[in-house]
Amino acid sequence: MSVLVVGSVAFDSVKTPFGERQRTLGGSATYFSSAASFFAPVELVAVVGEDFGEEHLEYLRSRGIGTDGLARAPGRTFHWTGSYGFDLNTAHTLSTELNVFESFSPTLSEAQRRARELFLGNIDPDLQWRVLEQVDHPRVVAADTMDFWIDGKRASLLKVLGRVDLLLVNDAEARMLAGEHNIVKAAEAIFAMGPKRLVIKRGEYGALLFDGGRVFVAPAFPLPRLFDPTGAGDSFAGGLMGFLSRAPTFEPRVFRQATIVGSVMASFAVEDFSVDRFRTLSMGEVVRRYEEFQELVHFDDLPQELAGLES
Amino acid sequence: MSVLVVGSVAFDSVKTPFGERQRTLGGSATYFSSAASFFAPVELVAVVGEDFGEEHLEYLRSRGIGTDGLARAPGRTFHWTGSYGFDLNTAHTLSTELNVFESFSPTLSEAQRRARELFLGNIDPDLQWRVLEQVDHPRVVAADTMDFWIDGKRASLLKVLGRVDLLLVNDAEARMLAGEHNIVKAAEAIFAMGPKRLVIKRGEYGALLFDGGRVFVAPAFPLPRLFDPTGAGDSFAGGLMGFLSRAPTFEPRVFRQATIVGSVMASFAVEDFSVDRFRTLSMGEVVRRYEEFQELVHFDDLPQELAGLES
Repeated sequence: MSVLVVGSVAFDSVKTPFGERQRTLGGSATYFSSAASFFAPVELVAVVGEDFGEEHLEYLRSRGIGTDGLARAPGRTFHWTGSYGFDLNTAHTLSTELNVFESFSPTLSEAQRRARELFLGNIDPDLQWRVLEQVDHPRVVAADTMDFWIDGKRASLLKVLGRVDLLLVNDAEARMLAGEHNIVKAAEAIFAMGPKRLVIKRGEYGALLFDGGRVFVAPAFPLPRLFDPTGAGDSFAGGLMGFLSRAPTFEPRVFRQATIVGSVMASFAVEDFSVDRFRTLSMGEVVRRYEEFQELVHFDDLPQELAGLES
Repeated sequence: MSVLVVGSVAFDSVKTPFGERQRTLGGSATYFSSAASFFAPVELVAVVGEDFGEEHLEYLRSRGIGTDGLARAPGRTFHWTGSYGFDLNTAHTLSTELNVFESFSPTLSEAQRRARELFLGNIDPDLQWRVLEQVDHPRVVAADTMDFWIDGKRASLLKVLGRVDLLLVNDAEARMLAGEHNIVKAAEAIFAMGPKRLVIKRGEYGALLFDGGRVFVAPAFPLPRLFDPTGAGDSFAGGLMGFLSRAPTFEPRVFRQATIVGSVMASFAVEDFSVDRFRTLSMGEVVRRYEEFQELVHFDDLPQELAGLES
């Protein structure tokens, strides 16, 4: 029971209609490991630069996140600058400075190679592959990707997908990857590439889990105060994988629960900038919100008399 | 137990990526009454022109829809021409010929005035008001509207909303009406205008029901074959109101069931052009799809051990 994540640890400069933050702690692996750490031990594999302050390391360690795999390289930390309009579903990237991430090629320790659950953040698929190859016998390999790699490194991505159990992408990415607009048909096309399960992330509209021939629709929590959608998808993946790592077996019902736990963690992530909401979040709040998700979608059986009506 | 609907009966010329139909039977009141007729007697109030063929009247009557209120006027029937791209969420209107609808002002019969459930399709709010005033003591008044009236006839629309129990609009319309982007806050603003309940229709993302302080998230059925989204919202409203008209009382649980019944009827409407799917649909299929909706969103309780974890 330990989750290994490879992805970005970054500084984000973000502007939303509700405020603005400069060089705040971000990155896919940061959000993922923050959310996953509520459920399981997490090992973080990433690289930061000389400008990465001790306070950020302290935060990660305070959440029990293993930072042995967090390399420090000469140069500056990955820096993303972006903004959101009132339509918080779409990020507008102003700049992406890869910096130390450009030449990152990690070698896993013995302990890290024994990780049971592996999450490949939406980094270069060649880098995803190098990490994947080093992990001995993972129970679950999950991966994210993005338009940039679907378009620019398709062959490398397909090689990775052949070894992925669970792919998590948003609907535009799924359509682009499959070359098919209908999302049910797109899921079938993606299954043919390797993944046995597929989660389609739909922002404020929740998520779909395709699991064999079955579909599960997970709602998003309608929030009156949504501050910063950055990291929602990675927090979702972190909650999902953290929950899975506790599960003795992987029946479909477990993946459904894990999808809701992911939705719960995403719903908290967006309530504040950066990973700030995770700094104060309690397990009691997590459990309560899971119950609120149950209430959100509950409806009763159809009255018996209806079945007897003429059509 | 009888549902009265006022809205358009029209010819639609529609093009989708899956085909094309010229001057096929359409209109908000047609879709609404087709869907509602599976659950309750429906009275249709609308106007058609001299070009409205007997075969369409026969279809309506074959579904048990009362057509005494379907006036025939000199001139041509309302004709909508539109198309959808692969993004089936958005209709592109090419032309709207109101024709006989332009001077429509119905007078209800004694029987129609006694309707228990009233649905005001998304027509001119002044016309909605004239119909509303003629119905004696409706149990539920539901209404739809659209950007054209929100923008162009706001005062008339607000007068109607003061008497509406349930408003059904899409998310863009809710935001426009409320002047608020966050959908939870938009719902609060709309409650202050009169409606006690609000359904936000979100196309392929399902629907939200705001009922007092509670939110219910209804999924949309992920369909591999979606032919023509025209009329989905009106079929939704028809299923919802038809179900409500059978309900002895109006607890929140009844509105949740009704919202799913609406989603079920919308999911069938889009499987074929025009109201063609309703021509062959059986009550057995309706009941089965309701059960499929239950399966779609079901997930188990969180394992007890999680509540005991440290955060």
